[in-house]
Amino acid sequence: MRPLKFQIFERVRAAGLIPRVEVAKELGISPASVTTLSSELIDAELIEEVVAPRGKGEAARGRPPVALGVRASAHYVAGLKLSDREQTAVILDFAGNLIASHAITRQPGALATEDFLNDCERLLDLVGAKAGIRRQGLSGVGIGVPGFVESAGGRVFWSSVLADGDVPLAAAAADRLGVPVTIDNDANLVALAELWFGAGREVADFAVVTIEHGVGMGFVLNHRLYRGAGGIGMELGHTKVQLDGALCRCGQRGCLEAYVADYALAREASTALEGVEGDEQTMVELLESLYENAKGGNAAARSIFRRAGRYLAVGLANVVNLFDPALIILSGERMRYDYLYAADVLAEMDSLVLKAGRPAPPIEVHAWGDLLWAQGAAALALSDLTETLLAPAREGAAR
Amino acid sequence: MRPLKFQIFERVRAAGLIPRVEVAKELGISPASVTTLSSELIDAELIEEVVAPRGKGEAARGRPPVALGVRASAHYVAGLKLSDREQTAVILDFAGNLIASHAITRQPGALATEDFLNDCERLLDLVGAKAGIRRQGLSGVGIGVPGFVESAGGRVFWSSVLADGDVPLAAAAADRLGVPVTIDNDANLVALAELWFGAGREVADFAVVTIEHGVGMGFVLNHRLYRGAGGIGMELGHTKVQLDGALCRCGQRGCLEAYVADYALAREASTALEGVEGDEQTMVELLESLYENAKGGNAAARSIFRRAGRYLAVGLANVVNLFDPALIILSGERMRYDYLYAADVLAEMDSLVLKAGRPAPPIEVHAWGDLLWAQGAAALALSDLTETLLAPAREGAAR
Repeated sequence: MRPLKFQIFERVRAAGLIPRVEVAKELGISPASVTTLSSELIDAELIEEVVAPRGKGEAARGRPPVALGVRASAHYVAGLKLSDREQTAVILDFAGNLIASHAITRQPGALATEDFLNDCERLLDLVGAKAGIRRQGLSGVGIGVPGFVESAGGRVFWSSVLADGDVPLAAAAADRLGVPVTIDNDANLVALAELWFGAGREVADFAVVTIEHGVGMGFVLNHRLYRGAGGIGMELGHTKVQLDGALCRCGQRGCLEAYVADYALAREASTALEGVEGDEQTMVELLESLYENAKGGNAAARSIFRRAGRYLAVGLANVVNLFDPALIILSGERMRYDYLYAADVLAEMDSLVLKAGRPAPPIEVHAWGDLLWAQGAAALALSDLTETLLAPAREGAAR
Repeated sequence: MRPLKFQIFERVRAAGLIPRVEVAKELGISPASVTTLSSELIDAELIEEVVAPRGKGEAARGRPPVALGVRASAHYVAGLKLSDREQTAVILDFAGNLIASHAITRQPGALATEDFLNDCERLLDLVGAKAGIRRQGLSGVGIGVPGFVESAGGRVFWSSVLADGDVPLAAAAADRLGVPVTIDNDANLVALAELWFGAGREVADFAVVTIEHGVGMGFVLNHRLYRGAGGIGMELGHTKVQLDGALCRCGQRGCLEAYVADYALAREASTALEGVEGDEQTMVELLESLYENAKGGNAAARSIFRRAGRYLAVGLANVVNLFDPALIILSGERMRYDYLYAADVLAEMDSLVLKAGRPAPPIEVHAWGDLLWAQGAAALALSDLTETLLAPAREGAAR
């Protein structure tokens, strides 16, 4: 459970600008406690008082209303998203405003850890130059990679962008960059980006399902990312939707991902498309061609998307039946293949959700690109920084 | 997020006896805050100071060490579990000590709401007589039923023990009994019982999977029961493990329950057992016979249990892949059919859990009966009572 001062900071951060009395109401504590603890946060230069703009109808009498907001210039952080085809970086201020961004395309394939660190360094210097902020001016860097990442321990067990397994990436990157580094997997980054800058400003609990090279999930519960006891939960892509089913990249059978991810579609594509040679096309070209054929009426191509859509419906229905989230956000580039959120997929999901006198939760599609993921990586750095700045030991000392 | 005073009460309750300094440490707040707030809890007669017994090696010098504990006689609550074959009731004091229990067997079948309320009343009076506590002496009653229950709204959408659908059971029972009533479904009750009196005293996050007439799940996260945004999440039994699979009681296909619950086993039993007439045997007799035949080497009977076990492994692996819990507790009478926790089921589960450099969580089997469920219902009443006593409005007023 979080110290009260932390909870106050979190509410201010999530709200953008919020009056003290509102903070007290939302946390169920006395206004006097909010006044005391927010003074400490102001003294520590983490939040500040802002004169709130008056509404049009409000009379301009008396003391102007004052709200609390995060002090934007208190800190700067960077977020790096390193994926198979693109490397993206952003720099944000402490209030989450985007200061600069930079993207580099690259040849797909796994990198040796040394080369990966070189890329991180180069990317950070390029985005830093745009922002006019040197590495020493950064309070933290968040790095996101696909795969199995234990965020708390800073380890990457497996990632498609790293040739080595079980890499202590956070420590290695911190050594190289000279800045505190936090790492996480990409689905958690999207959930964090939504939590800090998107849906999380309105909703306390929601699920993010990402469909890209794999199927990922992030889960925000009571304004916090839920990671599981071992730090690597939410592996929706590897829940089993068929006993002894299709072979998955992870080596097991029947994983949701083995029916829905791009490689799952691609491996049936050559059966559906005449004259296709797998080696001559990239995965993206192959999927585009499959998609065009399906739209053009090719029955085999359509059945590939139809099956993927049905299994996606199973996966989403299972998320609803288990988590009962207030909102599901579908995210990822694949979202533009509209089979994935076509009306009949959602209808099928609805038919698989337990009927218990309530409607299924709303589903939003956010087809954002790598910039969002990089912002999520920066939110990770902000999150870690906030934990450090507001750690109980410090609070105890301040009192 | 919970007010601090509530968090302190919760830690004291969960710990049994705990020194103030330990509470401060666990919550990450100053000992001074604990002293202030615990004084308010002592003034409200909810907790009390207890002189902690000294360890054998400790010298008996100076002030004796003092711990905080819940004031047992502050309140009494009842818990009722109404299931198909048995109706069980308990009365607990505010510290969770069992004062009395009573059980009645009944003929299976759904009851009209009026008859259900009559049964509740009779059961409450019988257990009250044993405890020497009249209804007016109770601060709350918790009622547990199988099925789809929205605890917050006090509604039962569907239950095998109620003939009517969408019943506002909490309000109707409170009217009849003259005591505040809270209701929930049985899997949540087991999770609450574990949270208050069992595993929850040691572990902050765990999952309970119940296998009875259906398959249920309760999930405790950070010492609290997670119910989902709509109040009826965790329906593990209705997650889909097979597209277009076996028919489930809920009317949908491919639910885990349709492969694992007792009715799923029973409907294949007549195919496996010679001379079985479904109408002449109760479900329990049929399953016992099936189990004896499987143990005796009947290949068809074995294959029924084997398949159920494999699907259970899928369900448990999905729980691990998604929630990454610190502990899974398997609960329910069916646990004595040892196929359900046989070594090969656990091995199969392990083979379906994502390999990410970590061991699968420990699995404990708690084959407790209806008394535990009734204690869970009483824990529900205690939980609701505590919420009422410590509501933010009251806290504000007390300050």
